[in-house]
Amino acid sequence: MMDSFVVPLPDDSLKFKVNNVRKAFLKTSQIANKDRAKALNLMADALHNNMEKILEANKLDYQLAQKKAISNALLSRLRLSKDKLLEGIQGIREVSRLNDPVGQLQIHRELADNLILQRKTVPIGVIGVIFESRPDAVMQISALAIRSGNCVILKGGSESNLTNTEICEALKEGLRLSTIDENSICLLTNRKDSMAMLNLEKEINLIIPRGSNELVKFIQENTKIPVLGHADGICHMYIDCDSDIEMAIKVALDSKIQYPAACNAIETLLIHKDVANEFLTKATPLFKENNVQLRGDEKARCFVEMAPAISDDWGTEYLDLILSIKIVEDIDEAIRHIEVYGSRHTDGIISNDINNANKFMNSVGSAGVFHNCSTRFADGFRYGFGAEVGISTQAMPPRGPVGLEGLVTYKYFLKGEGQIVEEFASGAKEFKHENIIK
Amino acid sequence: MMDSFVVPLPDDSLKFKVNNVRKAFLKTSQIANKDRAKALNLMADALHNNMEKILEANKLDYQLAQKKAISNALLSRLRLSKDKLLEGIQGIREVSRLNDPVGQLQIHRELADNLILQRKTVPIGVIGVIFESRPDAVMQISALAIRSGNCVILKGGSESNLTNTEICEALKEGLRLSTIDENSICLLTNRKDSMAMLNLEKEINLIIPRGSNELVKFIQENTKIPVLGHADGICHMYIDCDSDIEMAIKVALDSKIQYPAACNAIETLLIHKDVANEFLTKATPLFKENNVQLRGDEKARCFVEMAPAISDDWGTEYLDLILSIKIVEDIDEAIRHIEVYGSRHTDGIISNDINNANKFMNSVGSAGVFHNCSTRFADGFRYGFGAEVGISTQAMPPRGPVGLEGLVTYKYFLKGEGQIVEEFASGAKEFKHENIIK
Repeated sequence: MMDSFVVPLPDDSLKFKVNNVRKAFLKTSQIANKDRAKALNLMADALHNNMEKILEANKLDYQLAQKKAISNALLSRLRLSKDKLLEGIQGIREVSRLNDPVGQLQIHRELADNLILQRKTVPIGVIGVIFESRPDAVMQISALAIRSGNCVILKGGSESNLTNTEICEALKEGLRLSTIDENSICLLTNRKDSMAMLNLEKEINLIIPRGSNELVKFIQENTKIPVLGHADGICHMYIDCDSDIEMAIKVALDSKIQYPAACNAIETLLIHKDVANEFLTKATPLFKENNVQLRGDEKARCFVEMAPAISDDWGTEYLDLILSIKIVEDIDEAIRHIEVYGSRHTDGIISNDINNANKFMNSVGSAGVFHNCSTRFADGFRYGFGAEVGISTQAMPPRGPVGLEGLVTYKYFLKGEGQIVEEFASGAKEFKHENIIK
Repeated sequence: MMDSFVVPLPDDSLKFKVNNVRKAFLKTSQIANKDRAKALNLMADALHNNMEKILEANKLDYQLAQKKAISNALLSRLRLSKDKLLEGIQGIREVSRLNDPVGQLQIHRELADNLILQRKTVPIGVIGVIFESRPDAVMQISALAIRSGNCVILKGGSESNLTNTEICEALKEGLRLSTIDENSICLLTNRKDSMAMLNLEKEINLIIPRGSNELVKFIQENTKIPVLGHADGICHMYIDCDSDIEMAIKVALDSKIQYPAACNAIETLLIHKDVANEFLTKATPLFKENNVQLRGDEKARCFVEMAPAISDDWGTEYLDLILSIKIVEDIDEAIRHIEVYGSRHTDGIISNDINNANKFMNSVGSAGVFHNCSTRFADGFRYGFGAEVGISTQAMPPRGPVGLEGLVTYKYFLKGEGQIVEEFASGAKEFKHENIIK
């Protein structure tokens, strides 16, 4: 569907909106920590005051969606119950209490007499967020963006336009009572605009896509703006030869069934040949009991009857109760398999052998490498970040679950009293590079 | 020239080479700090032992290049004198003495009983470096890559193929005496291979282009691999109304003429209208003395005779002794001009007014914001990083001058004893998120 889609040029109306957000950013980025925190509480209050309106709009969105050929999964994500809304409001208050990610001093160094270098964290700028359905994302992401001194342009799925519009109106109502410009949050409601946004690399500093693999891949391939996120989440669990089989079964089950549609659920089990018989004999009935369809390679099917895995299976994110199984000769084969088919999200090992565990964790290049625990722990809340904008599988930071800290960048501040480089090049002055103790 | 170029698919020979580098990385990334440092000294020794051969190869490259229609600038960058080579060798020894960027513990937290999260810095992987001429870059970049546990695929300008080949042979000779696989360094000698590399996003984790704007832009637009670097370096200096004009002249001159071909040299001076007359009257003769061609907007040309600046001038990186001059109404106009035309590299203000200086530094979104000093200080060595892979103008870290620290990423290590998420979702267990004091 998206392959044939051409990214449109921004029209004047979009340019005007984006320009207003950029202007807002110049101010928002300067707002003190306590005022940003306060603005979040005002946003939460305004949502609370407008709950009726928001829930009403959501009911309408839902009714309209029901008349269209929309999947049940999408419908259920679209629905915003009163509890979910209250939870979202509570989430904003929690983000307001998180530590300020802005202004962290990372380097403080006297380069030469009275030539002082500081590296401090600063907001990134204007963040474009493109997501599908899930109106609660509007609240969460706006809170994280404002908390970190950024501005945000949001585009949700068109099925939730009415809900998103009411939520954004409430958020702006809150901002109007704060010191932050209400233009710091901007909602787009048509796809042409959200796609045209991909062409605005001078105005938009980061794109966060949250949605299907197809959407994320399309965005990654069609913009020069940095993209934070991930397309595939193909996670593996390797059961080592020396491992506690009961633990392996418990962890593998949780990693698959606790929430199979999550990106941190496993898609493939790699099992050392020496424990394959025991593991499969004991685990298969449990997987079946939980409606997990197993797909095995030739060796796995020698031990237990199951559907055959074809080569496509190793690179597929099922997001469903399906699990592919491969029997490996040794840990090296497991590591190589992950190197080829993994998506650098999260991969785990079950082993009693600490050397093997270390070897696995050091060799696998994923953002998360786990030993004797479920891959489902790969999550900003479970890591204690208090909030999450998403999970990144890219090689460079921020990667893994990204919290507030991932919404800032840094800047070098250099203050002098007229120093020039020629004085140093000629040898008249010398660098001393002394770190200043805080 | 490059616009019509289509990125080719990698052939079997390139795939084989890259595959060997990836295999090497699995080992190199595990090598202890002292062994990586030792390998660098062995690389330096081997270069020393092969100096004759390298200089001979460079003489040949130079003679061949002279017969072609190659610019003098390129010719001079191609030439490798004995002193330059010795300096390069010394540079490797200095990189060996830098602090290890790998294994830095950033987070250490007990998520729940005996469920321990660590975030540690790790090498990025296989780094592809594409540069033009300058054979000394081979030594510098190889040293930085190996020091940080990475592997590197290098492609230099074809004019320096013979030199680069001899340097790489020597570096590999050094690696053979070390614990590091010699395949950790790989030289490509034809353009088809270096361009095909852009298609290998599974195998190559980072591309560092060092060369013309055209080359960098082409690479940024034709690969899904993260690119570290910058195309344009359009730096500004703003002379505020309340500023020391003598200092302003001294700093502006240095920022332009100390090395005009550098990316951190200024291209545009923004001058507050109230000091424009004094500044231009005093500074113009000095710029002329130093062969700087001035191009002014209408207002500037009211004060002093100079060539007119056309609108293209504000977005041009001259890399030459040309300077555009614009008179602004106030600091806000200066900030807006930089927002529109700047390239987020380095921009400075000359001012005695600390409030204005802070406003400028907080509002301008560039990687470097300078007060009362030359933009030419934007450099890894001058910042005290000991080495530099390049300067990044992107919004996200690493940005600004990138040292060894920019060649690592991080990874989350989670160790448990069989914990599953369901126990926490059901309320049977609780997170505690306690930071472990180191």
